[in-house]
Amino acid sequence: MSKATIDLNSDMGEGFGSWKIGDDVDDAIMPLISSANIATGFHAGDPNIMNRTVVMAREHGIGIGAHPGFRDLVGFGRRDLNENAEGLVNDIVYQVGALREFARLYGLRLQHVKPHGALYMRAARDETLSRRLVQTLRDLEPTLMLYCMENSLTCKVARELGLPVVREFYADRDYDASGSIVFTRYTQALDPEQVADKVLRACTDGKVRTVDGRDIPIGFDSVCIHSDTPGALALVQATRARLEAHGIRIAPPRLS
Amino acid sequence: MSKATIDLNSDMGEGFGSWKIGDDVDDAIMPLISSANIATGFHAGDPNIMNRTVVMAREHGIGIGAHPGFRDLVGFGRRDLNENAEGLVNDIVYQVGALREFARLYGLRLQHVKPHGALYMRAARDETLSRRLVQTLRDLEPTLMLYCMENSLTCKVARELGLPVVREFYADRDYDASGSIVFTRYTQALDPEQVADKVLRACTDGKVRTVDGRDIPIGFDSVCIHSDTPGALALVQATRARLEAHGIRIAPPRLS
Amino acid sequence: MSKATIDLNSDMGEGFGSWKIGDDVDDAIMPLISSANIATGFHAGDPNIMNRTVVMAREHGIGIGAHPGFRDLVGFGRRDLNENAEGLVNDIVYQVGALREFARLYGLRLQHVKPHGALYMRAARDETLSRRLVQTLRDLEPTLMLYCMENSLTCKVARELGLPVVREFYADRDYDASGSIVFTRYTQALDPEQVADKVLRACTDGKVRTVDGRDIPIGFDSVCIHSDTPGALALVQATRARLEAHGIRIAPPRLS
Amino acid sequence: MSKATIDLNSDMGEGFGSWKIGDDVDDAIMPLISSANIATGFHAGDPNIMNRTVVMAREHGIGIGAHPGFRDLVGFGRRDLNENAEGLVNDIVYQVGALREFARLYGLRLQHVKPHGALYMRAARDETLSRRLVQTLRDLEPTLMLYCMENSLTCKVARELGLPVVREFYADRDYDASGSIVFTRYTQALDPEQVADKVLRACTDGKVRTVDGRDIPIGFDSVCIHSDTPGALALVQATRARLEAHGIRIAPPRLS
Repeated sequence: MSKATIDLNSDMGEGFGSWKIGDDVDDAIMPLISSANIATGFHAGDPNIMNRTVVMAREHGIGIGAHPGFRDLVGFGRRDLNENAEGLVNDIVYQVGALREFARLYGLRLQHVKPHGALYMRAARDETLSRRLVQTLRDLEPTLMLYCMENSLTCKVARELGLPVVREFYADRDYDASGSIVFTRYTQALDPEQVADKVLRACTDGKVRTVDGRDIPIGFDSVCIHSDTPGALALVQATRARLEAHGIRIAPPRLS
Repeated sequence: MSKATIDLNSDMGEGFGSWKIGDDVDDAIMPLISSANIATGFHAGDPNIMNRTVVMAREHGIGIGAHPGFRDLVGFGRRDLNENAEGLVNDIVYQVGALREFARLYGLRLQHVKPHGALYMRAARDETLSRRLVQTLRDLEPTLMLYCMENSLTCKVARELGLPVVREFYADRDYDASGSIVFTRYTQALDPEQVADKVLRACTDGKVRTVDGRDIPIGFDSVCIHSDTPGALALVQATRARLEAHGIRIAPPRLS
Repeated sequence: MSKATIDLNSDMGEGFGSWKIGDDVDDAIMPLISSANIATGFHAGDPNIMNRTVVMAREHGIGIGAHPGFRDLVGFGRRDLNENAEGLVNDIVYQVGALREFARLYGLRLQHVKPHGALYMRAARDETLSRRLVQTLRDLEPTLMLYCMENSLTCKVARELGLPVVREFYADRDYDASGSIVFTRYTQALDPEQVADKVLRACTDGKVRTVDGRDIPIGFDSVCIHSDTPGALALVQATRARLEAHGIRIAPPRLS
Repeated sequence: MSKATIDLNSDMGEGFGSWKIGDDVDDAIMPLISSANIATGFHAGDPNIMNRTVVMAREHGIGIGAHPGFRDLVGFGRRDLNENAEGLVNDIVYQVGALREFARLYGLRLQHVKPHGALYMRAARDETLSRRLVQTLRDLEPTLMLYCMENSLTCKVARELGLPVVREFYADRDYDASGSIVFTRYTQALDPEQVADKVLRACTDGKVRTVDGRDIPIGFDSVCIHSDTPGALALVQATRARLEAHGIRIAPPRLS
């Protein structure tokens, strides 16, 4: 059965100081999404950018999420780092708090947490880390939503411990037969209409075509389009237009 | 008239990773003070240390304060940095939030904010910065206390805008005739009994002897002893013992 | 008398990790200049970028210079930092060595040193810093060229101590009547033809029009166009074309 | 057959800014060793400390080596980081150059390179990294010595490619039957006399007792005692005294 509404999330505020990432289209993308994953300073983002990004999210009524990463600016949080669960969760608490304070400044609440890059992938396969993370987030705020992939240990543990999860569908990534993301280095920009087709189909039929040509069922509560994917703005525009044309409303996830 | 109670504050958690500062006597000093200024990662401190320090403060019922500094690890936040008020206050919001999240994890609230080192001194003489800082802290939480010096612009502005201030007396620094702190490079450790005498006199008579031998009146709500002053533990021990022997109780500041 | 050859320098390699600065036109600008100021990691640049940039400079036979800055990534080295001459010169030695090692890897020598941003401006007005810097560079390599402004203390001290200086003319900055640079925030991109005119005139007549409409004499050995000035590539292209059309050859500075 | 001379190396300059590591006994240990591995800023050390440490090494005629680590200050370079060989070797070139420049300032040459912590261990088991590192060091300076463990891929590759190796014996670590180091968390300080015995025996008999009580042959050219091992100074003192009492001279390694 087709979804009536769907969340559309994107990473926002991933510059650092004077530096930009990708096409720097945050202000064009922000009004088109429903949830913003805001970089919290360890892999990208800085206090000025965080402040600006929270203000921008508020203006458009976008759900605000913390997007904490490994402490690795030069590697943009994409390099796995051999740190234990305790240390990583302390890093996440620190970053979540930093963003929550900017939300507080404008009378907003934090909607969600989505770990970034290599930290997201680490949590997905590391049950000790996922367990400590979920328990800590639950202690901090039992209604904080955790973004993750359906087939991740993060998702399994969060459900077990009763923390709300928002499962993501990656519009700009390929899937293999196991439902896992395949990291493909595209030599050219993705075609916006094809991406929109893929998302629409996932929303209406609950299926995605894998890299080896099979259809697999896919469960998700949010569609992610990365703002640093080349041509990201066009992807978001096409996807949003397509969904709306089919009567699917873009809206933040709701606690069930 | 002598004070019946006085707050005793010290900087805590100023290591970084494996590194220690001074004699690393945090766990010995913590039970003796009433308010802890916890380093928040920009000049010192890291998420693991912050977590440990908050746990330690909770154990002894010590008031928890954020101790944000310039983003300058190698300089320990002691070098003035030419950044505007907006950028500095964003840095402070970030750091305050990071610490507040650790407090939240243990069901504690933040008692105060005390900028560190060169940032504290900058705010003291920069009204634009003080004003923006005070307004922002008031927006964040109108009962958050701001530690500062009596003769600072920070104190003036906070009073004007109605943010609670806690004026500090520096037990381990010298004063000049204007009531300002004189930075002396001591070649030997301070004598604990002399420091205790000085603090007791300030608490009972409201006076301090300046470097040029005069007595000046001094208004304060808290006594600060820096944990990285050589022999800091002995200074705290002697001061606390002396105050208690004269019936002055060590307790966190109260909102009036 | 018109110059027969002139050096054209630009800052290169000022990204950091995945981040780009400005239009990221290094590979288009590099073949058009004669000297590259390569960022050395404290305000911008990282070892991968430094390696790539040195390789690119070698390919086109461009003079390689170290472009050390304050240790301030988030501020891009544009914020003055209150550090003493000893500490700053140690920071510069560190950064110069880091770049020299990449040059060594490809059998190249270091042509020059040009401090970046706020550090360049600090040295220009701080004789203690300039003196220590010049002495240290001379101890390191007496033929290393130091880029600076004619009316700076850096220039004065370098001449006094016999370190080769290369005085810069800023094609993309305005001058006041004292011959000092005026920092103007342009709301629109500079006109390439006007910039080319200005540089040509400086090369042929030795004069520049100031912001208040006067002509002042200007002494220089190199023309600087900042790669992060909006439209930098067009400025460099127009300037080079204009100079060559008037028989002025672009070539690295020579020791006299 | 007993060794007539042996190199004694220790990590030096591993503070950062105001922070100290361990007992901060660099100035007491320096005169007792023959080779200093000087931290180069990525895991520890900063330009001021590097300058001071090079001056101290020069004063005592100690061989100067670069001690580059992962870019991970908070983790002290002890956490493995998933970066490719190219990126890691660029990081090492950068750091080696930074230290070499301080040596150059005092007319000294670099004796050796010894990667730190997790980077040393990574190279030991990663042939791609070892190969790229050895080739690059050879390109930089074919007589630069590379410190490593005998049973490491680093050692194998360096021998194959003709870069001089200095194999280390770890006085303050335990060995297993394969000749590999066992990381034991000691609850108390090591006994200096036992450590001295162990080193003497290794030097005279070429054998070490493993954690499971067997004697294995051990080939090495240098004895390493970590300056951050608790009681490091006493270990170095006892070891040096014991070796000298048995006619074994402490001296830097020589190119054969």
